[in-house]
Formats: sequence, C-alpha cells, structure tokens
Amino acid sequence: MKKLLAAGVMLALVVTLAGCGKLSFSSDATDSSSGTATSKYQTTGTVDSSMYQGVIKNGRYQTSSARGLTITTNTQGSNTYNIKSMESGLKSISMTHFSTSKYDLEEGQLISTATAENWLARQSSSNPDGLNPAKGSGADYQTKRPEYLATLLEQDYMVANGNSLKLGGISIALGMNEYYYYQKKAYGATYSTHIDTPTLNKAGRAMAAKVVARLRKMKGVSNDTPIVVALYKNADQDALVGGTFFSSVTSKSGTQLGDWKTINEQNQVLPVVENEKALNTTVANDFSNFSDQIENFFPTLAGVTAQTHYESGQLTGMNITVNTQFYGQTEIESFTQYVASSAQKYLPSGSKIEITIQSTSGIQAFVARESGEKSFYTHVFGSY
Amino acid sequence: MKKLLAAGVMLALVVTLAGCGKLSFSSDATDSSSGTATSKYQTTGTVDSSMYQGVIKNGRYQTSSARGLTITTNTQGSNTYNIKSMESGLKSISMTHFSTSKYDLEEGQLISTATAENWLARQSSSNPDGLNPAKGSGADYQTKRPEYLATLLEQDYMVANGNSLKLGGISIALGMNEYYYYQKKAYGATYSTHIDTPTLNKAGRAMAAKVVARLRKMKGVSNDTPIVVALYKNADQDALVGGTFFSSVTSKSGTQLGDWKTINEQNQVLPVVENEKALNTTVANDFSNFSDQIENFFPTLAGVTAQTHYESGQLTGMNITVNTQFYGQTEIESFTQYVASSAQKYLPSGSKIEITIQSTSGIQAFVARESGEKSFYTHVFGSY
Repeated sequence: MKKLLAAGVMLALVVTLAGCGKLSFSSDATDSSSGTATSKYQTTGTVDSSMYQGVIKNGRYQTSSARGLTITTNTQGSNTYNIKSMESGLKSISMTHFSTSKYDLEEGQLISTATAENWLARQSSSNPDGLNPAKGSGADYQTKRPEYLATLLEQDYMVANGNSLKLGGISIALGMNEYYYYQKKAYGATYSTHIDTPTLNKAGRAMAAKVVARLRKMKGVSNDTPIVVALYKNADQDALVGGTFFSSVTSKSGTQLGDWKTINEQNQVLPVVENEKALNTTVANDFSNFSDQIENFFPTLAGVTAQTHYESGQLTGMNITVNTQFYGQTEIESFTQYVASSAQKYLPSGSKIEITIQSTSGIQAFVARESGEKSFYTHVFGSY
Repeated sequence: MKKLLAAGVMLALVVTLAGCGKLSFSSDATDSSSGTATSKYQTTGTVDSSMYQGVIKNGRYQTSSARGLTITTNTQGSNTYNIKSMESGLKSISMTHFSTSKYDLEEGQLISTATAENWLARQSSSNPDGLNPAKGSGADYQTKRPEYLATLLEQDYMVANGNSLKLGGISIALGMNEYYYYQKKAYGATYSTHIDTPTLNKAGRAMAAKVVARLRKMKGVSNDTPIVVALYKNADQDALVGGTFFSSVTSKSGTQLGDWKTINEQNQVLPVVENEKALNTTVANDFSNFSDQIENFFPTLAGVTAQTHYESGQLTGMNITVNTQFYGQTEIESFTQYVASSAQKYLPSGSKIEITIQSTSGIQAFVARESGEKSFYTHVFGSY
C-alpha cells in the first residue's frame, strides 16, 4: 500500500462497476480541459449507486496479487461455480460495511501469491503459517484432520485521499470445504469426507483471528482499518451451483474481532432432482410452469434449468439456462420474445432474473430483469 | 395456406419480435376475462414498433416447412454467418414493403422441404424444376455452368383477418454463390470458381421470375399477394462475416416483376488484414483507437475484432468480439465497464453496436447500444 499512498505522480482512473445498467459519463479526465494530467483519479459517473467503482493505475486494471491462485492446494477447486459465487457474495457482504458511494473496489493487493499458498497449505515445520491443520501422526489424518480451508479471497476498499486513493477497508473470504477431497496415494482414486457446519464454523473462526492479526502487521494497514472476514462453504464438486456464506465478523481495530453474525443463504438448482425437496415450493412451481410453457412452444427444446439463490429464506435471484436447437435467426427472435413474455407471466416478481438462451454454438439471446425492475430487457445476438 | 385460412378453431398467439428492448405486455388472451378461447390471436404489445411480431399456432411456434434445409446442395453452406445475415437482411428489406404495424411474420410455410431441394438442385430430366443450370455436355460444367443458387429463404407476412390471420405478402431471398465450391470426384479436394456480380445478377433475375410464377400457383397465394424477391451474395467459406444483398424486385400481381432495385450493402471485418483497404477509414481508425484503449487496460487481452455493416456507404452496425482470459468476476465487471466507457468515447455514434466479451469458457458479459440510443446497456453474466 505504501506505493499507492506515495503515488503523487500516478494517474488513477476509476471506472463504474455497474453489473448492469445504462451508463452515463459524468466526467472525463482525459479531456484536455480538465485538471492536471499527473495526479488525479476520476469516475465515469454511475446510474446504479449500488455498485462499486474499480481502480485503475497507470491506465491498467489492478489485478489481485494472488490472481488465479486464490483457488488452490489440491482438488478442492474443481467446481468453478464456487469461485464466481464467492467473489460476488463477498462484494455483497462488503456493501453493508463499505458504502458504494464512498468506497471504490480494488482487487486484493496485500496478500501475495506466495503468502496465499502458504496460508492455504497445511501447517508444518517448513510452513508455520499454514492455516490448515498439521498432518500429525497416524495415516488417517485426511479424515481426522481434513483441510478445512480451500480458498482465500481478498478485496480492498479504497477511499479518496486528496488526489489519490487510500485503503479504507479490507474484506476477506475464507472458502471452507464442506466436502474434503483427497487421494490416498498420488494419482489414486479421489475420496471425500464430509465436514459438518459447526466444525467448519469453529475452524473458520480460529483462522479468521489469525488472518486479522497477520493483516494488521502488513504495510498500509493501519490499526483501525476495518477488516471484514466472511466464512464461505464451498459446494461439492458435482454441484451445478456454487456454495454460500454462513458467517461473518468485523474487526474494527487491532486484533479484536467483533461478534460473529450468522448469514442465512441457500442455493438450489431447479428442477430439483429426485428425492430432493424444493427450498421453496412456490418458486419451484412457478419455475415449473414457466418451463412447461416454453417447452410446449418450441419443437426442439432440450432443457431448462435454474440456479436459485435465497437470502434469509427469500428468493433474491434466479439464473435460468435454456438449451435448445435453432435453425435460424427468426426462430431465435420469436423464441426470445416468448421466453420474456412467459417469464413476465410465470416467474416470481421482485427478484433478479437472468435467462440465457443457448444452442450448441453458444449463447443466442438473453433476457434479464434487474432487481427492482418490472420489465425484462431482451437481446438477440446478431451477425452480419 | 388453406389450413391457416380455415382455422376457425385455431388458437393463434402472436408474440413480439423485438430484437432488443424493454417488453411491456398490453394484453393477455389467456386471462380468463378475455374473449373466447377457441379462435383468436393476440399481441404481447410492443415498445419497439420497428419489429415484426411472430405467429404461434395451437401454442406452438411455426417453424418453416423447409426448416434447416434452406441451406443445402453441397459445400456451399459452410459459412454459417451467411445464414444469419441473409435472414435478418431479408427481414430488413421486407420492412420497406410490409409495415411492422400491420404485418406479422411467419416462417415460410409455402415451399416445402422437398420443393426447396428440387429448386436448389441442377435442372435435369429427373428434376425439371431445378433452378441451377443443367450439367450439359463436357467435363468442365462446374466452371462453365456453376451452380449459381445455393440457398433459398421464404418469409410469410401475415395480416389480421377477423379472428384469424391471412397471408398478406411473401419475401424470398435467393442466396447466390460468389464462389462456387465443387469436388472433381467424390470426397476429393475442393475447388472453387469465382462468379462475378453481373453474371449472378443475370442468373438471379431469371430465377426470380420462375420463383414468382411458381408461387402464384400455390394454394393460399392470390394473384395480387405482393411477392418480394431479393438476391443475396454468399460470402466465401472462410469469411468471418456473412454476405450482402445486392438486388431486389417486387411482383405486385401475376407473374409480372417490377423494376429491379440495386441494393448497396457492404460488410467488412476489422481490423483489416494486410493488403485489404478499409471501406471507411474513419470507422477503421475509431475501432483501432477503441481496441488500443482496451488492450492497454487489461493484462491478458487476446484480441478484439469487429464485423461492420454498411448500407449505401454509411455504417449501420458493428458487432465486436473481445476475447480475453479472466480469473475472476471482479475483473470481468471492471473490464465490462471499461469497455462500455471506451466504446462511448471512441466508437462511431449513431450506429447500432453490440460488444460481446468472451473467455475460453464462453460469453462473460455484453455491452450494447441500440440504433438511435445514446447510452450503452451492460450486462455481466452471473452465477450463484
């Protein structure tokens, strides 16, 4: 962080992080008329104040130091849904601590790749910083002392400081293994052991305390920089949806943690598989009506599935994928409008909905309703 | 058409064909309060009056009789850009004849698969209806008498007729071979012969007269149903963009064709390859500035390409594909906003722009500005 704080000659641009929305541009620092060119940052102006703005340094986007290595150690990272889900979930949690109007988001710059690798590994004499349990004695360490921690994600929240930006807060996600996958010998069969939530909670809380203490010692982190640590439970490797956050804590200063808060999130794929119970039967029925409606409409529909996301028991979002076979652009356009009209009629109102219409040659169209909106936006991908 | 005209017991739904736009639903015929359930059609209501509504019969979408077989005969159909481009181009041409406020679009129902196959084949004693030249004598028929016609597309434009719909107009696209590909022996090497535009024009005009005469004899087509025939030049099989329409004619009644109109359309892929000249240097420079801007921004950008479309020398649309490698959702979101902001700043105003942001795992985000709009819509595809 020292580098950033001292960056008096740095050109810092800031772009809007709106996940979706019409952009409007309030100012443009590359206009010859505006300010000095040596030390400033700017915003593009936002229409969606619920989104963070991202940090650019010297005209280049700041990727995380531990970029691509937050998912690590062994075979734990094979469900890629977990990655996206953990990132956007941590951002949502951060919003309750770091207001989007005041803070900009920079990908984690404090924890380096090497540090992340050490923290995620098992503790050992050669790796005293490992957050996962030491192997200890006995051959059954993989079931008795599984690796609880699989992934680590850092997000830095920056605040304006004159013409520059300074660190205003840190969010850390610890991705815990609900299922720990391991091999008994190299290249051997993969086994898994289930870890219950109380155990993950206990292990995660202990790790959180260590992580906060270590961050406090890092350059650029002051004694009262707020640090949020959230515990995430990775979905199993065959899941068609990512995991969920289950607990979080804030350290306002020093190594003191505040009270742990329980986070009640659930994900479910629809239609539910045999023997599985719908988390919310109304939502499941609405989805089933929607899906019947569009399956009847189109001769060669291959399948409709949805990822649903609940917070405190309430549906907050649905990502629907429609797979079908198309022979022409006219079919895709008609079908897309029909999907939008069926979504309006059958799907639950109020929550965010994203529908992608896919064929074997990739995405053909998409239909979306943002949170708080009433109407659907539709787009059919074209070609000349 | 008889079937459709006699369809007193048919439930015909009509959906909006808006390629893109916010949907609002003006009426809903499945509401128990509205009308009889046995014979009616309805519209979803449009916000974009420049789009056709599509036809649904008995709750199912009406695909074309010649579905999937419009592209046929031999190796001519290997550039899939041609298919999309021809379909949407024919629709654009139709709009100048059949107003979107009065006509609904139904995929071609008159020309059956078998008929299309016969028409597209070479004329022979066993296939007198073949529109392509007979082989004749001599081994050099593939260069001397190439197959001019590769594809055939029919679109039916329907008008309200009491509680039902009747045929109000027909549009036909004849997809001509600028490059005719052939094998000298089965499974042998593929050769190609170039056919110049005057030759295609002459051949296409003769075929158009035959097609109009044959359509007039079909059931449901009256003597004064307007028939539009447009000639399309397929792009070569290696092109990264589809072909263009070059001529069209309207038969208002009988077998009489009106005056042929020249259509001035051009497509080009940007950046241009070595030795190729940009169709419009301003557009090419704007694109190059845009591309430089975003390539500087992001560490792992693999490439930016665009399909550009010109009508009468004016840029009317750009489809841009950005390929890059991402490690996380935050990167994608920041990058998407940066792309939108760069597009706003550098790309030509006034024309339709669609930008898809791709990684190896498929589409990640998209940015679009509809024709006539000033601001860009952005969407980052999410996952739970």
